[in-house]
Amino acid sequence: MLPIAIDVMSGDHPPPEYIAGALSALREDAALRVILVGDPSLIGARVSSIPKELRERIEVVPASEVVAMSESPREAIRRKKDSSMRVAVDLVKSGRAAACVSAGNTGALNAIAHFVLKTLPGVERAAIISAIPAAHGHTHMLDLGANTKATPEQLGQFAAMGCIISRDVYGLAAPRIGLLNIGEEDIKGHEVVQAAHVLLATSHLNYVGFVEGDDIFSGDVDVVVTDGFTGNVALKTMEGAAALIADRMRREFHASWLGRLAGLAARPVLRRVAASLDPRRYNGACMVGLTGIVVKSHGRADGMAFARAIITAALAARRGLTAQIAQALAAQGAGTPQGSTT
Amino acid sequence: MLPIAIDVMSGDHPPPEYIAGALSALREDAALRVILVGDPSLIGARVSSIPKELRERIEVVPASEVVAMSESPREAIRRKKDSSMRVAVDLVKSGRAAACVSAGNTGALNAIAHFVLKTLPGVERAAIISAIPAAHGHTHMLDLGANTKATPEQLGQFAAMGCIISRDVYGLAAPRIGLLNIGEEDIKGHEVVQAAHVLLATSHLNYVGFVEGDDIFSGDVDVVVTDGFTGNVALKTMEGAAALIADRMRREFHASWLGRLAGLAARPVLRRVAASLDPRRYNGACMVGLTGIVVKSHGRADGMAFARAIITAALAARRGLTAQIAQALAAQGAGTPQGSTT
Repeated sequence: MLPIAIDVMSGDHPPPEYIAGALSALREDAALRVILVGDPSLIGARVSSIPKELRERIEVVPASEVVAMSESPREAIRRKKDSSMRVAVDLVKSGRAAACVSAGNTGALNAIAHFVLKTLPGVERAAIISAIPAAHGHTHMLDLGANTKATPEQLGQFAAMGCIISRDVYGLAAPRIGLLNIGEEDIKGHEVVQAAHVLLATSHLNYVGFVEGDDIFSGDVDVVVTDGFTGNVALKTMEGAAALIADRMRREFHASWLGRLAGLAARPVLRRVAASLDPRRYNGACMVGLTGIVVKSHGRADGMAFARAIITAALAARRGLTAQIAQALAAQGAGTPQGSTT
Repeated sequence: MLPIAIDVMSGDHPPPEYIAGALSALREDAALRVILVGDPSLIGARVSSIPKELRERIEVVPASEVVAMSESPREAIRRKKDSSMRVAVDLVKSGRAAACVSAGNTGALNAIAHFVLKTLPGVERAAIISAIPAAHGHTHMLDLGANTKATPEQLGQFAAMGCIISRDVYGLAAPRIGLLNIGEEDIKGHEVVQAAHVLLATSHLNYVGFVEGDDIFSGDVDVVVTDGFTGNVALKTMEGAAALIADRMRREFHASWLGRLAGLAARPVLRRVAASLDPRRYNGACMVGLTGIVVKSHGRADGMAFARAIITAALAARRGLTAQIAQALAAQGAGTPQGSTT
């Protein structure tokens, strides 16, 4: 496999955190090679003293600029042609890298990825997909925020791409696809979800119908399809709810001597629960529908979480994600689910 | 205060659960009077043996029909004119009840409430608002699903009504109002939130700008404004995330002898955390913007949770919610936030 291009300059942390994440990924996956993109002297200082076995799997490609977290996507495309983000995406485009990973500005990464890589035939807009912990293991949800809205046809394309991720990358035989709505009855929701519901019901997909927010976790569905606005709000809401629960538990366990003792006794169990739900384990959202693989790491991701995003990119590359999606969409007639009349 | 009209027939539970909830509310609030609406023989059998002091504060109004959970709102209005839900709302309209409470079909309750009570001058659509647990106590969020979408002007009206609930019903001096979006920067989001952002920034409200899903819980905002689709998905998502965490903890504590012992030690602490976040404590979502008070209980609410919804209705009635909203909106010029140009 070609190396994975890694933007080590963008995100909420300073570059050494992302370089450390790349080194963790190299240690975990002995067949992995990476291209670290950014300031060569900064990268050099961090990788000069690591074991030769790791160093041999690292290439450095210089980039003189960084896209700021608050920079507008348009400015990022126009003015930052030598940014670490742009160079990493360009390496995928030119065929030197199998995929790229960045923890930077989502809007800019989305815009650069669309601008440089373009969408696959039959795909109007790429979507961001990620695994979410659920009762039966995990659910895949898309779009998590690549777009602020979606047409019924685009929701149909998201469903087809989500199915491929779940089936061909994660190995589920016949992923159950649900469309996020505010009720499960056929009559519920606005006209976009209503039209998408009709489209999906007549597609070749294993479509189970409308699902609600709590079904993301229920185990009753494998892929949850929604527009990028709703998906992003749902993702951030679950993160916020989990953080509130964790904070309340910490406080209650520290509120008294008895609580602290109980906390000591319960710690191994609570650690296992926290680890199984740790958002860092699920870090690495894939942009799907482009001619190459782009993985977005959470901006606040630490090195350990950033390594997960790199491993996700490597998995998608090894399973030939882009080719799988292109083939499946071509077989279905330019991205529209089979049997649809649009 | 006038009595609260209670639809005891609608919801996922059989009527005795809701009657028990009404009795709990009467025990908790000695000044409360209720009108139980439904099958008189069924209600009579449950209240005949209770203490006289409670019985004297109960009136029974018969209703011969029940709106089913899956019934279409239109059918409910047209064909179920003697349903417990309709009769309870009619009692508010006719001035016999200060407010009404139902755990039934949200769409039908919303449609009946709009049809019978109408919206206040300057309010285009009523919204559903509820308290959500947060780091600083709770946040109020609306719309939680009365509507499937909202215009910028309607979001402005939701913000004004949310402010009144938070200030005049719950006593916050200057509630911080946030608009739910997929990023905090001014450039983020679709055109509806963009236009609402401009409207709110020039209003008299204490508008803090865009907030994200995790801010619902962060304590950085007191009122979160969004359309009914996004709000309902966020609400169900937080319920689902909390249920998943609780389930994982239960399993881990039961996975071994040591875990079970630790669970015993930690139980009092975990119970306090669970109680502080218990959705039943937050049950009772208010429909705001109508000429009368309508409170929607969760369909799955048990008696204890249903009692919270009744207490919420009584609080809103005592604080003169409807008049407060009408006055505030009139003062602001037909519901549009001050200073706006629309």
